[in-house]
Amino acid sequence: MLSTLVLVAVANTGGAGVVPDAVSRTAEALRDAALADDTAYRLVEDLTTEVGPRLAGTRQEARARRWAVAALKKLGFQNRQITVEPFRMRTWVRGAERAAIVAPFPQPLVVTALGRSGSTGPRGMKGEVVVFRTLDALERAPAKAVRQKLVYIGHAMPKTQDGSSYGYFGRARFVGPSIAAKKGAKGVLIRSVGTHSHRLPHTGVTSWPDDVAPIPAIAVSPPDADQIERIADRGGPLTVSMTVTPRIVGTTESGNVVVDIEGREAKDEIVIIGGHLDSWDLGTGAVDDGAGVAIAAGALNLIRKMKLQPRRTIRLVMWGAEEVGLEGAKAYAERHKAELDRHVLGSESDFGAERIFRIHAHVSARGDAVVDEMLRLLAPLGVAPGTRGPAYTGGAGPDLTPLVRAGLPRFRLAQDGRDYFELHHTPDDTFDKIDPAALAQNVAVHAVFVWLAANTDVDFRPRQAPSADLSK
Amino acid sequence: MLSTLVLVAVANTGGAGVVPDAVSRTAEALRDAALADDTAYRLVEDLTTEVGPRLAGTRQEARARRWAVAALKKLGFQNRQITVEPFRMRTWVRGAERAAIVAPFPQPLVVTALGRSGSTGPRGMKGEVVVFRTLDALERAPAKAVRQKLVYIGHAMPKTQDGSSYGYFGRARFVGPSIAAKKGAKGVLIRSVGTHSHRLPHTGVTSWPDDVAPIPAIAVSPPDADQIERIADRGGPLTVSMTVTPRIVGTTESGNVVVDIEGREAKDEIVIIGGHLDSWDLGTGAVDDGAGVAIAAGALNLIRKMKLQPRRTIRLVMWGAEEVGLEGAKAYAERHKAELDRHVLGSESDFGAERIFRIHAHVSARGDAVVDEMLRLLAPLGVAPGTRGPAYTGGAGPDLTPLVRAGLPRFRLAQDGRDYFELHHTPDDTFDKIDPAALAQNVAVHAVFVWLAANTDVDFRPRQAPSADLSK
Repeated sequence: MLSTLVLVAVANTGGAGVVPDAVSRTAEALRDAALADDTAYRLVEDLTTEVGPRLAGTRQEARARRWAVAALKKLGFQNRQITVEPFRMRTWVRGAERAAIVAPFPQPLVVTALGRSGSTGPRGMKGEVVVFRTLDALERAPAKAVRQKLVYIGHAMPKTQDGSSYGYFGRARFVGPSIAAKKGAKGVLIRSVGTHSHRLPHTGVTSWPDDVAPIPAIAVSPPDADQIERIADRGGPLTVSMTVTPRIVGTTESGNVVVDIEGREAKDEIVIIGGHLDSWDLGTGAVDDGAGVAIAAGALNLIRKMKLQPRRTIRLVMWGAEEVGLEGAKAYAERHKAELDRHVLGSESDFGAERIFRIHAHVSARGDAVVDEMLRLLAPLGVAPGTRGPAYTGGAGPDLTPLVRAGLPRFRLAQDGRDYFELHHTPDDTFDKIDPAALAQNVAVHAVFVWLAANTDVDFRPRQAPSADLSK
Repeated sequence: MLSTLVLVAVANTGGAGVVPDAVSRTAEALRDAALADDTAYRLVEDLTTEVGPRLAGTRQEARARRWAVAALKKLGFQNRQITVEPFRMRTWVRGAERAAIVAPFPQPLVVTALGRSGSTGPRGMKGEVVVFRTLDALERAPAKAVRQKLVYIGHAMPKTQDGSSYGYFGRARFVGPSIAAKKGAKGVLIRSVGTHSHRLPHTGVTSWPDDVAPIPAIAVSPPDADQIERIADRGGPLTVSMTVTPRIVGTTESGNVVVDIEGREAKDEIVIIGGHLDSWDLGTGAVDDGAGVAIAAGALNLIRKMKLQPRRTIRLVMWGAEEVGLEGAKAYAERHKAELDRHVLGSESDFGAERIFRIHAHVSARGDAVVDEMLRLLAPLGVAPGTRGPAYTGGAGPDLTPLVRAGLPRFRLAQDGRDYFELHHTPDDTFDKIDPAALAQNVAVHAVFVWLAANTDVDFRPRQAPSADLSK
């Protein structure tokens, strides 16, 4: 009961008491400088132009790390502030990919292999397609209905502003192929997990449990999915040929690029932001996630440029190998395991380049007072409160998952994602899709976020309610 | 002077006097029936689904002719009303196609060969790229600047409602490659002639004068064009590799499908409508030109279904091999040369599936009175007057060009083309892009057009002014 009263009292007084006036004024100056600064926009331009696609574990991703270090130095960061933390990973690369309807109406399909797809071998495979409109229909189907056949999974995803449909409809990609493989299917075609109607397929990783051998698994573009469903509606057998020859090239190096602005009083306490440096290989990784890398770097650079020294350490991580299974996040958690509890607050930007429209925060009651001050400073930028406290059960960006599991208090600076799945994991994820004004708004929000979080002594760690403590 | 007075008088009285009331009432009934009829929409669905891509001269195009004959019979047309008029043509087919930036920033490009492009051979070619932002810049460049190099042509096209930018900016494709070839370039890359920003390249035919040997000529998608231009802006040599292996397969058969509703009183006088049955091979030819074929067939079918017999013959032509150089149009003009002057009026639908927003008419003054009546009936559908008489110097659709050259009076039932070049000649030209209500509006306009034109004795042929007669 007491804690509730405290919460209400703090909420009513805003950030006063936990955020010194001078800190707020600096955050305001950072916010305004961010809106007039094109550093982030130029960073995405350079990364997507001078590196382009950068699949995890490949030479292109290594080029991206070298690019990042050079770009940070060019901005003015010091050698001692920048660390590349390498790690090893099993690396998957795309091969040839093509598919066609063989019968009843011969015509090519626009397809791409899912990440971690098996190979058909260079001679390809051909088979009758069993069409499932939903993942559930596949799950309910008897094995004999799909054995030695190709499985098509529809499960079309609608647009949502917060991206919440992705978790549910994305399962067609995440687990659909392994479900089909377990039932004995020889190959899988899914409707691209995307919300547009262009001949652009969406790749993305699919997962195989240890007891399931990967089979060829491809995504068809949304209009090709419509075509398959229309042909299925006409009845009779539908035969498709497909050739995909991806392969595991072995163990190669990836890495995280870590940049610190060291704290003045509490340098062991870390506020962590970032984005991931790797991208899928089809596009040039502009919205996923050149934007995230650039937003975080743009915010950090403003602090550097204004020669500000925060109370706590502000850490930017440009994560490696996010797309293929959070390899960089796992490597970071392993390498920094002794200091996980020194990460006092975190948020990753990995949902495109559109405006942040609300802030979710899973933090302590005193931390919530910092959120209130943040919201006061960000209201002119169209940012509203989201879910607060334990009610917020979502993450803080994929690469912070291991840290969140270890108890990291977290923010979600939630971007408008209505158009994110028009581009996500497609060849169309390119620089021209980024609106510089929306990108600058993201930088401004991040600058305010890190500055307030790094210049307070508030413990953001939520106090567990006694019952919750006891139940576990 | 007299003729001007007559023109004004006729314009003031609308169609009264040239269009009998009963004809207007039937046209009105056709219009309303068209708006409630989904025949055209189902035809595009079936053609794009059951045939799909249908490149001129190929087996796919032959399947489209068989599909058309079967579809017409299924609608209720009689065998005697349908004629397939075959012709022979030199047929070009696409091969492998890929390209990449080799230096300074290695990454793949999304490309497609232009129609009639030469081949690089299976081993491809590599070369330094000379970047021209406009076609004019290429034309002014000395041969030594491009000899044995690859030429890039930008010449970006803006959106226009009437498609008028295509003639000017499309020259980058129509003649850009041959201009580069004449100067000794070994290959050409053009910015796709399109108005979107997706990783979807636009194909389309390029022409080679007799004294110019075809060289490899490809289009890059608009974002890839941006990328090339951004890299060029950074200075230093830009090297690209490209492999395209299209080839001429030899002489094969194509054909026009001709459908007549015979005239009651003047069966030798022909009002001609249609669309082209072939498509580019990248998409399924929905807006280019499944829509045109379906609009014309939908209008003709309403007349058949309502058991109406027109005064003049109404002819629908589903043209073959339009895309690769009006082969069907030429074959028709040759086969029907004795009766070219019996074609009393024509219009082809080949500019997508969006609404008709105005009508241009190059017809006689009495014919103009028929236009007025047409406009009166079509105003509720949002159709406005366009350019009239000799002031209208545009065509009536590509396949009518030989007939127009022979003096055919013509209408342009002008569609809204703002989004046409988002899809035109790309993989994205698929059924999902068609709005059934807009398609039905097109059918309604065509039904009114043909009914009025075929049920009058008006000579649409413009009278030449004496001075014009004498000057020639």
